[in-house]
Amino acid sequence: MISKVLVANRGEIAVRVMRACRELGINTVAVYSEADKDAFHARYADEAYLLGPAPATLSYLNMDKIIEIAKACKAEAIHPGYGFLSENAAFARACEQAKIIFIGPPARVLEVTGNKIAAREEAVKAGVPVVPGTGECPADFCQLQDDLGEIGYPMIVKPAGGGGGIGMVIARSDSDLQRALTLSPQMAKKSFGIASVYIEKYIEHPRHIEFQILADSQGNVIHLGERECSIQRFHSKVIEESPSPALNPELRAEMGGAAVRLARAIKYVGAGTVEFIFSEGRYYFLEVNARIQVEHPVTEMVTGVDLVKEQINVAAGLSLSLRQEDVKTRGWAIECRINAEDPIRNFMPSPGTITGYRSPGGIGIRVDSGIYTGYTIPDCYHPMISKLVAWGKDRNDAIMRMRRALYEYVILGVSTNLVLHKAIMENPRFVSGDLDTDFITREVGLLADMQRIKERDKAITERLSTIFVRPK
Amino acid sequence: MISKVLVANRGEIAVRVMRACRELGINTVAVYSEADKDAFHARYADEAYLLGPAPATLSYLNMDKIIEIAKACKAEAIHPGYGFLSENAAFARACEQAKIIFIGPPARVLEVTGNKIAAREEAVKAGVPVVPGTGECPADFCQLQDDLGEIGYPMIVKPAGGGGGIGMVIARSDSDLQRALTLSPQMAKKSFGIASVYIEKYIEHPRHIEFQILADSQGNVIHLGERECSIQRFHSKVIEESPSPALNPELRAEMGGAAVRLARAIKYVGAGTVEFIFSEGRYYFLEVNARIQVEHPVTEMVTGVDLVKEQINVAAGLSLSLRQEDVKTRGWAIECRINAEDPIRNFMPSPGTITGYRSPGGIGIRVDSGIYTGYTIPDCYHPMISKLVAWGKDRNDAIMRMRRALYEYVILGVSTNLVLHKAIMENPRFVSGDLDTDFITREVGLLADMQRIKERDKAITERLSTIFVRPK
Repeated sequence: MISKVLVANRGEIAVRVMRACRELGINTVAVYSEADKDAFHARYADEAYLLGPAPATLSYLNMDKIIEIAKACKAEAIHPGYGFLSENAAFARACEQAKIIFIGPPARVLEVTGNKIAAREEAVKAGVPVVPGTGECPADFCQLQDDLGEIGYPMIVKPAGGGGGIGMVIARSDSDLQRALTLSPQMAKKSFGIASVYIEKYIEHPRHIEFQILADSQGNVIHLGERECSIQRFHSKVIEESPSPALNPELRAEMGGAAVRLARAIKYVGAGTVEFIFSEGRYYFLEVNARIQVEHPVTEMVTGVDLVKEQINVAAGLSLSLRQEDVKTRGWAIECRINAEDPIRNFMPSPGTITGYRSPGGIGIRVDSGIYTGYTIPDCYHPMISKLVAWGKDRNDAIMRMRRALYEYVILGVSTNLVLHKAIMENPRFVSGDLDTDFITREVGLLADMQRIKERDKAITERLSTIFVRPK
Repeated sequence: MISKVLVANRGEIAVRVMRACRELGINTVAVYSEADKDAFHARYADEAYLLGPAPATLSYLNMDKIIEIAKACKAEAIHPGYGFLSENAAFARACEQAKIIFIGPPARVLEVTGNKIAAREEAVKAGVPVVPGTGECPADFCQLQDDLGEIGYPMIVKPAGGGGGIGMVIARSDSDLQRALTLSPQMAKKSFGIASVYIEKYIEHPRHIEFQILADSQGNVIHLGERECSIQRFHSKVIEESPSPALNPELRAEMGGAAVRLARAIKYVGAGTVEFIFSEGRYYFLEVNARIQVEHPVTEMVTGVDLVKEQINVAAGLSLSLRQEDVKTRGWAIECRINAEDPIRNFMPSPGTITGYRSPGGIGIRVDSGIYTGYTIPDCYHPMISKLVAWGKDRNDAIMRMRRALYEYVILGVSTNLVLHKAIMENPRFVSGDLDTDFITREVGLLADMQRIKERDKAITERLSTIFVRPK
């Protein structure tokens, strides 16, 4: 049905999408910024076109240019990946108008999911538990006194738009709240163009558990189980896994059912994620991510379902390839996000040229990356090197396999956070499955662990590294 | 139970075994020949010791030296990989005497499986179908006249020892047979030291289908389904897959049951393979391979069982981690053996230095290799580069994923057989699942296909290759 797809993204996710296309017999078109002229994704595609200078507004966010290229090269569809234009309702609408298939939810869905207040209201209507909170805050928050009394401190003020933790302010007292209600709308206005904010009970040290959903335009909606993404740093996920050590089959069925109910209520189409926070055995709707997620491979590893192929087929008008009862999980999968940054030096980014590279392989290992030996990681994008995923028959098997993969991963020329992942995979609290979103902050021993592990693994690192510079 | 394993092998299988060890928390010891001083497996291990000069008798077949090293470094067990000493009963016995665990079947089993006439007799006793044939040929084959009349031409004369097709001679007439019965024992004596031969009906264009078995020393025996390995060249497997397109669930259960019955009869312990030939809906026992097979990853991909970990645990005296009813397969897996050889120039071996390397990755892809960028493939061993395995939800999905992986595989500096694999993955007969062991010989169009594909993919090969030599 679709014979050519333009991938409006870069890095590993652009390669991921093109792989799915190739496997479906679909031709691929890459677009790239000037900073990405040597990027792997641009070489991988059947065709590649320059978008413009590095700043995203001039390249990966340049809707008109992207649609113009798609039309010129006769691509019938655009896959936006994650980030950039992936949840942009205006872009989805512009594609519709240009008669190009946007591989993602329709604009009307993105308008709901892009507004957290609207999404929260839909969740309430669908009977999905939400954190005690308010609707949109009125200018004069005294009108909320009764509601706030019920919620109680601590609270969090959140912008309706955007994401990534930007503009969220925690309040533990009346004076905090007053300040937050000035600060948050200002930041929201500046970052997302919309000042609307709302207030929620702030749940301390929760887990982050999200459900993968798939929906087709025939009205079929299924979930593919959960991912636990509690290991974060400044609202940015570092390690994800599926399933979650916190859920049992009953809770999984209940939460999955809630996610499907919400997706049905908003007439969702495509692949998406319903995020929950989880604390003391209870779950609360957080938001819908209306795109393929960075961490989607862990779901693919345990379910055997290719989420990107489903996305493409659904966008082409096909029905989902499986029903809820066909979803069977096997084993456990963990993903480590490997970045060019130095976790021992306060996570300082370390862009630069990769002078030696040997990715882990063998049983149960999947590596998604957009880099290669000799590639220079530019300083204008997030310095991700790869997503390293380990599958095992159970959680312990997956952890042991991840340790093995981290051991054999050789990346020379840039600093990496491999040592952080090693430290976490050996951390007793992580191994026991006792996770929360403040894990990295609260595990104060991690820095010393990293220093010790770096020293301990020096010999092996050297032994595996020197094969790249052997004497003749 | 076992804290240190010596791996008495080289290349990808040595790395494969060490990965399993690391994931079990077991320390690893490598041994290497002088030709392998820069080999990856020697760097990967926790310790590495030089065996001696390249000829196998002076290194990887040097039993005394290997046992001496194991004792000196206090390894409690030796894993022999495949080939070399893996099916050597004398070595298994020497390990026993040195109080070192041999990770493989006991010597008494290897004595049966190493003699094809004895193995054939055991199969008959266990009620497993065999090809019509004789026992050991007497010096005067006239004594066999009655038997031979029943078998009928064509026949094949096979040595009792050895493998790899060496010493097998096909006979289509009385004069052929007379010649074969002189030639085969001579070749057998020369190659394996034993002149014994036997005669079987020669089945034309059969499929090769083998069953993976696992057995522990508590008497539990299970099978993990089959692998079809019909794509061969001169008795050497080129492509393997699991399951086989030729079997249905009933036949699978019947053949699997036969394999388990035979394993029980010979009191098998460890991982092993029962090979069958398959023709016109009927199966015939061929031989038992009493080792881990090159093609074991396809079974691991569909069953989720780590066969090498099971081998190690069974050798340590543990029970199998699963029962027959726990074996559940998912999807389809195909393995391509990637060699440094030129299939367009009559498969001329192409040892040499790998100057650029980027292995395929992403969803459903597994690569097992013992090489790296800058590594020089020596000319004294089989020039394997890697085993590339693709998993898909069904056979077509696996084929499409393999095509994608072959597309993105970059290996510079040596000739490879990537183009042969591309041609086979696009071959209509292969795609339809119509396979037999003479496939490569009979598909006379393959050479032209390879030339066409090489030409067609020139641009992409260059595009993906030049990233390694980008202008500064």
